[in-house]
Amino acid sequence: MKITIAQLNPTIGDLPGNAQQILEVAQLSAATGARLLLCPELSLCGYPPRDLLLDPSFVEAMEMTLQKLARDVPPNLVVLVGTVVRNGQAPINGGKTLFNSIALLTAGEVKQFFHKRLLPTYDVFDEHRYFEPGSQANYFTLDEMRIGVTVCEDLWNDEEFWGQRSYAINPIAELADLGVDLVVNLSASPYTVGKQQFRELMLKHSAVRFQQPVIYANQVGGNDDLIFDGRSFALNRQGEIICRMAGFATDSATVEFAQAQRDLQLGSVLPADEGEDGEIWQALVLGVRDYARKCRFSQAVLGLSGGVDSALVAAIATTALGKENVLGVLMPSPYSSDHSISDALALAENLGIKTNILPIGSLMQSFDQTLADLFTGTEFGIAEENLQSRIRGNLLMAIANKFGYLLLSTGNKSEMAVGYCTLYGDMNGGLAVIADVPKTRVYSLCHWLNSHSSVLIPENILTKAPSAELKPGQVDQDSLPPYEILDDILQRLIHNHQSAAQIVAEGNDSVIVDRVIQMVARAEFKRRQAPPGLKITDRAFGTGWRMPIASKLFNI
Amino acid sequence: MKITIAQLNPTIGDLPGNAQQILEVAQLSAATGARLLLCPELSLCGYPPRDLLLDPSFVEAMEMTLQKLARDVPPNLVVLVGTVVRNGQAPINGGKTLFNSIALLTAGEVKQFFHKRLLPTYDVFDEHRYFEPGSQANYFTLDEMRIGVTVCEDLWNDEEFWGQRSYAINPIAELADLGVDLVVNLSASPYTVGKQQFRELMLKHSAVRFQQPVIYANQVGGNDDLIFDGRSFALNRQGEIICRMAGFATDSATVEFAQAQRDLQLGSVLPADEGEDGEIWQALVLGVRDYARKCRFSQAVLGLSGGVDSALVAAIATTALGKENVLGVLMPSPYSSDHSISDALALAENLGIKTNILPIGSLMQSFDQTLADLFTGTEFGIAEENLQSRIRGNLLMAIANKFGYLLLSTGNKSEMAVGYCTLYGDMNGGLAVIADVPKTRVYSLCHWLNSHSSVLIPENILTKAPSAELKPGQVDQDSLPPYEILDDILQRLIHNHQSAAQIVAEGNDSVIVDRVIQMVARAEFKRRQAPPGLKITDRAFGTGWRMPIASKLFNI
Repeated sequence: MKITIAQLNPTIGDLPGNAQQILEVAQLSAATGARLLLCPELSLCGYPPRDLLLDPSFVEAMEMTLQKLARDVPPNLVVLVGTVVRNGQAPINGGKTLFNSIALLTAGEVKQFFHKRLLPTYDVFDEHRYFEPGSQANYFTLDEMRIGVTVCEDLWNDEEFWGQRSYAINPIAELADLGVDLVVNLSASPYTVGKQQFRELMLKHSAVRFQQPVIYANQVGGNDDLIFDGRSFALNRQGEIICRMAGFATDSATVEFAQAQRDLQLGSVLPADEGEDGEIWQALVLGVRDYARKCRFSQAVLGLSGGVDSALVAAIATTALGKENVLGVLMPSPYSSDHSISDALALAENLGIKTNILPIGSLMQSFDQTLADLFTGTEFGIAEENLQSRIRGNLLMAIANKFGYLLLSTGNKSEMAVGYCTLYGDMNGGLAVIADVPKTRVYSLCHWLNSHSSVLIPENILTKAPSAELKPGQVDQDSLPPYEILDDILQRLIHNHQSAAQIVAEGNDSVIVDRVIQMVARAEFKRRQAPPGLKITDRAFGTGWRMPIASKLFNI
Repeated sequence: MKITIAQLNPTIGDLPGNAQQILEVAQLSAATGARLLLCPELSLCGYPPRDLLLDPSFVEAMEMTLQKLARDVPPNLVVLVGTVVRNGQAPINGGKTLFNSIALLTAGEVKQFFHKRLLPTYDVFDEHRYFEPGSQANYFTLDEMRIGVTVCEDLWNDEEFWGQRSYAINPIAELADLGVDLVVNLSASPYTVGKQQFRELMLKHSAVRFQQPVIYANQVGGNDDLIFDGRSFALNRQGEIICRMAGFATDSATVEFAQAQRDLQLGSVLPADEGEDGEIWQALVLGVRDYARKCRFSQAVLGLSGGVDSALVAAIATTALGKENVLGVLMPSPYSSDHSISDALALAENLGIKTNILPIGSLMQSFDQTLADLFTGTEFGIAEENLQSRIRGNLLMAIANKFGYLLLSTGNKSEMAVGYCTLYGDMNGGLAVIADVPKTRVYSLCHWLNSHSSVLIPENILTKAPSAELKPGQVDQDSLPPYEILDDILQRLIHNHQSAAQIVAEGNDSVIVDRVIQMVARAEFKRRQAPPGLKITDRAFGTGWRMPIASKLFNI
């Protein structure tokens, strides 16, 4: 039996467009003799649909789109497509009003629904907000073959693999008991660094443990902060990868289930990824490209400071949108160094993007004059530093508004963590491209990029001391610990949930640790107003980071 | 038996401070002969603690604080205090690692825990993100009296009252079957318009249905976007209110359970609230006061445009913080009308607040000159309009940064809904005071205020046509439907989840309805970067509004 995996890139809410994508791959796969087509979780509406699900007319439209799709797909093909289904029992028995489901379409009809059983409600996931868990093992029989159906998280609770349970049940164990021949998993699993290796390791464990071939069909594409990496794959009964699909791109592949051996046969296996930097690079490029496209922007603008953050973002934007679609704006102040201009221009030349130079000295004077009476007798300080950043932010937004460009903000995760950034200034933008990339990783991405292309990021940008250049002679390390130390502390605090005492016990200075913890807490008000930032780690600021602002630290 | 209800205002995360509050009321109530003290849900850490709960050292610190509190409270008093408890079974059986619990303290020890059973996961509530539901009915026996313990949502699932179930079980029904003498409910229930009437109606129904006296102890105070209104109350077995406590203020009250009659006795009953406008007014004042206090601000600044929104916010801020702590800044442009200055000054005089006038004409010219080459051949448009708003936003932030003031933003809900506001301009601020108040309600609040005080909002502000004054002769109704119509459409769309077809069927123009729906969807990127807005309705933009940005409307 030929089974096609459709690694689709839906647009959230675009029901006709998403259905059309499914229809096209269905027609193609039927023409090549496939019997079964697998589409990702919630592929009809795109994942995550969020509060669109609270709108009954959206659910109704999804139902009608599904019925139409069932009529349109080739009648001999069986299509599994992700959609939502109303929980008719909710008013009587309690529970959420929807299921996160897979519909089985064939012969012009919607024949069957399978409800997702394990509902992730952590990090960026809010599935208990909308969905009731399915209560029974999901499978169907096709040409005498029994196929188990699981949805994303359903396969993420093997207590042997994890050493503990997150949910009471393990759906694949139940399916194995029911004697299925194959388990398919329809996913919308967002990218984080190293996640694909983890997925393959985890599903290999399940395949071997339960002697089950497994097909994992994942969504691809950027949706706001989330980047779905695709990289769908399949494992035979021995846990060997027999198919691996493209990373960070739409793809489809057909695998063969040999009914004699009751196993999947070796198919097309793309190589595994090429290391963390390369993987992150592709993720960020896709994130920018899809955010722009799905928000109907074709061009982007960003500020070029001559620093490493804006250099990296410019390179990403150029790759994502094309050099003719990126404008870099240089906005020197009297505090800017000469190299800030020359480095930025060299970068722009390497990338082949347009630039504009808008000096901000006279605007700084205008603000100073306007505020002169009110600020009489005060010293130059944060207010004046921020003003420079905000003048630049205003100029960039004026350009974005005037020409319909997407403004990309360039702050990195280390800055966002400690608040070393200006709200309504350099934080301005529709998308924060590297907001989940720590400063040390920004450097390694630039080095990776230069080693994989002709040198794009000028050497001086990578070697000079980082500086905001908001007062004479300023460098970041006047205000912050060295980035190697800062990023290590932040990793322990944010990702590892370590306490101050634990971080100090690992060899960090307690004064620095306490200061960093305070800075992180105090910057919450800035992060709350940040643009969506592309998520590449297991704990990004954004939709999965839910912290109070008005609060008092318990431990300082 | 004397039972004291402590209506506390905790600061999120401030474990020692919150414990001290509990200790003080415990000592006071013991001194007056109380046997039992009731504190709100999660009173040890404040509600909602959000992702602080993901930090194991926070949970550990809470456990230690609880143990110390148990030792400190008077030994003869039984204290119920809200805290979290680790779910030791989670790794083995699956499930979340914490319970949302009530600890029973007495005789120097933590004697017992009761776990919340119904976990709200909708709107602003994310309890399934952190907590496992308790699996058994909670009660204890004190002086031969059997007391049922419920936590907030536990009493919000009476299928008779609602006509349907939201959860499988109804904890009060189970407690009634167990023959308890009294049900206590420890809550952290945020304010929305009309909610107190609803609570009283709902618990009256339960009291009568199950023949149970009920004590409802609620948190009070502002925590970011959420305002807890307090207004704790108690009902006797007949469903009569025998105690009602202060609204929007810390309070404590003692009620008497007469063991002979097995019922609560009539105590101190404060009057019910005085109508929606008065209630909203108090909520917003508390929200501003607590946000400022808990973020350690004593003074606030805001822009005074001469319009009704900034007038209302100035009045709220003055009441919350004191007239000496509010600075109003007037920033006229060449497009500003004369009355914008005179009305703003009249308002400031009525309120007794300081003002400053910073004309922005020369800054507008500076920006125009800086952008002249780039903008050659383009028409005056949105870019130039937004620049004015952003110049003002910059000036206000410069003042806030320079003097350590809290900047209050003044946009109303109607504007926030349709995006009739400037990101990084008038949206700037630490707190969006009236972001959940529709424009029509802004007017009614101003009229209410004027009728309950000497006239504070000058008449001309209430009668002139609303205008952003960003180009000559502009009024809001050039771009928007009349506010009565707009607010009606928004109410149906946002609160009632009606479809375009339904809204049109209610008598609205379909072109206008479609346009409003489009504007709401397109403004999502602005709302994502808005400051926290004080929530007064059942569907506010903010933490309980989770919409995709990069999406395509399914129905337009």
